[in-house]
Amino acid sequence: MAPRPPAASMPIGIAVPNLAEVVAEIAEEMRVRADRGEVATYIPELARVSADQFGIAVIDNDGKAHVAGDGDVPFSIQSISKVFTLTLALGKAGNRLWKRVGREPSGSPFNSIVQLEREHGIPRNPFINAGAIAVSDLILSGHQPREALGAILRFMQFLADDATITIDNAVAASEQRTGFRNAALANYMRSFGVLDNPVDLTLGVYFHHCAIAMSCRQLAMAGRFLAHNGINPTTGLSVVTPERARRINAIMLTCGHYDGSGEFAFRVGLPGKSGVGGGIIAIAPGQASIAVWSPGLDPSGNSHLGQLALEALSKRMGWSIFGA
Amino acid sequence: MAPRPPAASMPIGIAVPNLAEVVAEIAEEMRVRADRGEVATYIPELARVSADQFGIAVIDNDGKAHVAGDGDVPFSIQSISKVFTLTLALGKAGNRLWKRVGREPSGSPFNSIVQLEREHGIPRNPFINAGAIAVSDLILSGHQPREALGAILRFMQFLADDATITIDNAVAASEQRTGFRNAALANYMRSFGVLDNPVDLTLGVYFHHCAIAMSCRQLAMAGRFLAHNGINPTTGLSVVTPERARRINAIMLTCGHYDGSGEFAFRVGLPGKSGVGGGIIAIAPGQASIAVWSPGLDPSGNSHLGQLALEALSKRMGWSIFGA
Amino acid sequence: MAPRPPAASMPIGIAVPNLAEVVAEIAEEMRVRADRGEVATYIPELARVSADQFGIAVIDNDGKAHVAGDGDVPFSIQSISKVFTLTLALGKAGNRLWKRVGREPSGSPFNSIVQLEREHGIPRNPFINAGAIAVSDLILSGHQPREALGAILRFMQFLADDATITIDNAVAASEQRTGFRNAALANYMRSFGVLDNPVDLTLGVYFHHCAIAMSCRQLAMAGRFLAHNGINPTTGLSVVTPERARRINAIMLTCGHYDGSGEFAFRVGLPGKSGVGGGIIAIAPGQASIAVWSPGLDPSGNSHLGQLALEALSKRMGWSIFGA
Amino acid sequence: MAPRPPAASMPIGIAVPNLAEVVAEIAEEMRVRADRGEVATYIPELARVSADQFGIAVIDNDGKAHVAGDGDVPFSIQSISKVFTLTLALGKAGNRLWKRVGREPSGSPFNSIVQLEREHGIPRNPFINAGAIAVSDLILSGHQPREALGAILRFMQFLADDATITIDNAVAASEQRTGFRNAALANYMRSFGVLDNPVDLTLGVYFHHCAIAMSCRQLAMAGRFLAHNGINPTTGLSVVTPERARRINAIMLTCGHYDGSGEFAFRVGLPGKSGVGGGIIAIAPGQASIAVWSPGLDPSGNSHLGQLALEALSKRMGWSIFGA
Repeated sequence: MAPRPPAASMPIGIAVPNLAEVVAEIAEEMRVRADRGEVATYIPELARVSADQFGIAVIDNDGKAHVAGDGDVPFSIQSISKVFTLTLALGKAGNRLWKRVGREPSGSPFNSIVQLEREHGIPRNPFINAGAIAVSDLILSGHQPREALGAILRFMQFLADDATITIDNAVAASEQRTGFRNAALANYMRSFGVLDNPVDLTLGVYFHHCAIAMSCRQLAMAGRFLAHNGINPTTGLSVVTPERARRINAIMLTCGHYDGSGEFAFRVGLPGKSGVGGGIIAIAPGQASIAVWSPGLDPSGNSHLGQLALEALSKRMGWSIFGA
Repeated sequence: MAPRPPAASMPIGIAVPNLAEVVAEIAEEMRVRADRGEVATYIPELARVSADQFGIAVIDNDGKAHVAGDGDVPFSIQSISKVFTLTLALGKAGNRLWKRVGREPSGSPFNSIVQLEREHGIPRNPFINAGAIAVSDLILSGHQPREALGAILRFMQFLADDATITIDNAVAASEQRTGFRNAALANYMRSFGVLDNPVDLTLGVYFHHCAIAMSCRQLAMAGRFLAHNGINPTTGLSVVTPERARRINAIMLTCGHYDGSGEFAFRVGLPGKSGVGGGIIAIAPGQASIAVWSPGLDPSGNSHLGQLALEALSKRMGWSIFGA
Repeated sequence: MAPRPPAASMPIGIAVPNLAEVVAEIAEEMRVRADRGEVATYIPELARVSADQFGIAVIDNDGKAHVAGDGDVPFSIQSISKVFTLTLALGKAGNRLWKRVGREPSGSPFNSIVQLEREHGIPRNPFINAGAIAVSDLILSGHQPREALGAILRFMQFLADDATITIDNAVAASEQRTGFRNAALANYMRSFGVLDNPVDLTLGVYFHHCAIAMSCRQLAMAGRFLAHNGINPTTGLSVVTPERARRINAIMLTCGHYDGSGEFAFRVGLPGKSGVGGGIIAIAPGQASIAVWSPGLDPSGNSHLGQLALEALSKRMGWSIFGA
Repeated sequence: MAPRPPAASMPIGIAVPNLAEVVAEIAEEMRVRADRGEVATYIPELARVSADQFGIAVIDNDGKAHVAGDGDVPFSIQSISKVFTLTLALGKAGNRLWKRVGREPSGSPFNSIVQLEREHGIPRNPFINAGAIAVSDLILSGHQPREALGAILRFMQFLADDATITIDNAVAASEQRTGFRNAALANYMRSFGVLDNPVDLTLGVYFHHCAIAMSCRQLAMAGRFLAHNGINPTTGLSVVTPERARRINAIMLTCGHYDGSGEFAFRVGLPGKSGVGGGIIAIAPGQASIAVWSPGLDPSGNSHLGQLALEALSKRMGWSIFGA
């Protein structure tokens, strides 16, 4: 794009805020807050995580990582994985994917089945559960579940440049035992022919990629290509085309926080995707790849402190995509 | 915000695209296209407008207007007016407004009443019809309809720096005669206490501000404050705070095109608001205020050529807010 | 139909229960109960009525009236009037009526607008508010509101053989002032062309016929034709054909108690229609026409004691249409 | 109940219609009709059945069977089985059953999942698929699927007094392979705790009892207890209490034909339950137990000729429960 001049609102002589300092400040502010949201209880393994934790990692343009709080503690990334399975499935199926999944905000909770009935089994977008299951099904097609999961995990390791990332099988097993709502969604889509594979296998892939464990640092590393027009800035290698990177960001902005997506855009002003493990990845295009984590959730299922931290970061750094 | 360096993807030595040329190219490309969408027929006055027309106006950072095609022909701005009544109502009521109107995408057509029943009469956002009627009601409170409309019209004239802008009373009268769906929405909200004023008066204000007639040039002029952190760049005067400008842009991005909002974000990557008259206003933060117009609509009720033109403009100028 | 032999379950020698005694017993049982439901508050005039009251009237095959408790106190019949406007409109429009109104149970509260959106403005049945408004519109067509109301009132007086029945204008005016939900329904149907007349006039007719005041005795008298195959047993004159009488009873059974219709069929086993004034009319085909009244309502909007009384009456008299 | 006198509308000297003749007439009228509806295609085994067939069986008060057409050809009873599983489950669980299943008409197609979301996993009534699955789950609890199915089959054989009735395993297997929508419903209810058993086992019971094959004669025999206050008139043994028989009839009347239930009550005026195999059982309380069968369905999924035949039968015999 065209080089942007300094924004009209940035008076000459005002120092650019120091990212390292801002990250440290925010981590400290979050550490001491009393309001921490509610830890998700529907998966026993997630319910055991302490709400006291808060982590943040910001990777800037130069590849420098600013990490604070519990930013190196791994957690269950849950729905954040959907950003990466979408990227992988678009690489495999291209725009054919959009015949199975829409790209409109849903106006409904993450696990609503009503929308599916109204729209003949086509999920509204790839970030509600139904949509992500349809994406998993596309990745699975032509493979064994083990192979599909291996591909997803290797993609995460590649993006994060970290071969130690693994799947927490206890979390996956726990979800598989109790994931009746997701089984309902999958069977429902299968009844419309939106899924191709046996429902159990598709759900197996879905539950396992949601159970990938990563730290904020690893997640922020993995998101860099979205902040840099599809290119990994360290290696200079292209992960996706610039257009596809922009489009994934657009879907994160409109659909990344369930029925709190409008609120996140309004307050934070960055593309982002949350998970019920309390993590959020956010992208400041051309500026930084960001991950925050705090297990307490708001009523929409998004990390309470995570959103506050991102709101503060976006504001102090002037990173909102909606300002100049 | 911090000054942005030239994007990594912009190779040194590549010329910045020339906005004047790009605007002229796009106008010519749109002029010759055979696919033009369907002109809205539900208001007789709108149905008479020829689908052959296409206009575009882009006001750049220096205040220079690039206008092509039918960019100086006035048309019925319809729902585009909702951006400006929202701005006005926020100035009057502040964040109290958000007790009556949400800010989440609706996942439903513009005139759906289902969402209102589920959410106790609170419209999902200020850009669906119900939400805009609630905003009109806030502007009306404490005033006569004539005064409220005068305030809205003067605000448009002030923003566009053009005292000739008027309301097309034939369009307003036509909508008032046939606007039973909007009367249903208004009465429904009134039954929940979301409206304060007599339904007829509130609807009168609503129908009339939707009937304001403006050209692309006038609309693009009126939108400049949203591209420049709330400041009118010509006068240097502040219209709204930088935060409010960003937030209005965020709502346009997530809710500005009814149930085509996700698609618009995906393809165009700019905050925008459409109207059934065929106009769209779009904001490239820090770069430009844009208006396009072509009366033929797509099935979601958004201008067919208008969207194509904005997609081309955003792509060629590198203005997507989702890229670096 | 064929004469029915004594039911197999009725042992020879068991005395037929005495209707007069049963009615008196039930009135006494209801008088002393502490649980009385909640009086409707949405219309100020209805909210002032004391929950202490209970009335019952049963007109048997011989035209003898068994009246107890407050069975001669007039009350606002509200939605019970819909049985009679349906009868009148069928007389005027014949089966053409069923192009504008369905005859399926709604599965929704009485004032739901969701169903209308899904079914293109056609109300599910003539006993939900939207359906009754559409019926009022049919009665109004070709007349002034005053004439239409006169026709409805005279029909009630004729059926009840009582020229003193009147409309309580204070109740009608109160509903007209606050009936925003009904105005929403009417405008919504008008937007689909389901109503022909100006919304205000149709609603005027609707609100006024709901405000007719009658006692249990008068209501039970008015319902006799439905218990006797369409014939007024006193005069021997036919009000409707036997088939039409059966069909109106069928709609009362499936749709007469909003989303408590299944429950009423299950517990009482008689066609019936309730009103938020606390009245219920019920029909024991070939046996009796019945009206009860007690202002306290259950959560579905049906008279709490009224339903209990009808359950007891149907059981003790062996009148359920579902038994032999 | 009290013995009913001959209805006032039955002029003295008019002969009671002859049931044997009426049944024969109707069978002939149906045999020659050209309009036969559409055979269900979603189960391959059902799709192969010829639409040319029509059968009828009526068992009168004296236990005499009037059978005509293909009334002795076995067919897949499908949802008609739900009447009998409900009876069995009420015997096992009593009114506790109503904590898991409602008894209101649904206002939705038979396999809608929307209603479940709105009502927290509680199906509206035991005759929509979700409700019948919940009933199967209650029957299964404490047993192996084989035992539960054995109990259901023996109950049918006992009621029909015919030990040759069997389950068509090819139909059951076919439904199990393709029943994704039902798997969605079951998993969805399980997510709310409305089902207790493993979803696969509950669905196995459900699919198999829907695959019971019976002729009209066998079905009409099985329904006799509902026409006679819960008593098998041949043996004099009580199957259920009179009150329970009436209540099952009431649910059949309000919910027995999916979203065609109101229409069936309106036209036929008898409690009845249809299945997508083209069968319908209907009860004329105190008069007869009836079964009809013709595989072609109307858009609501109910046998087209079956309904016409029942309408004619009810009318000619004067059996409507809504007339005197």
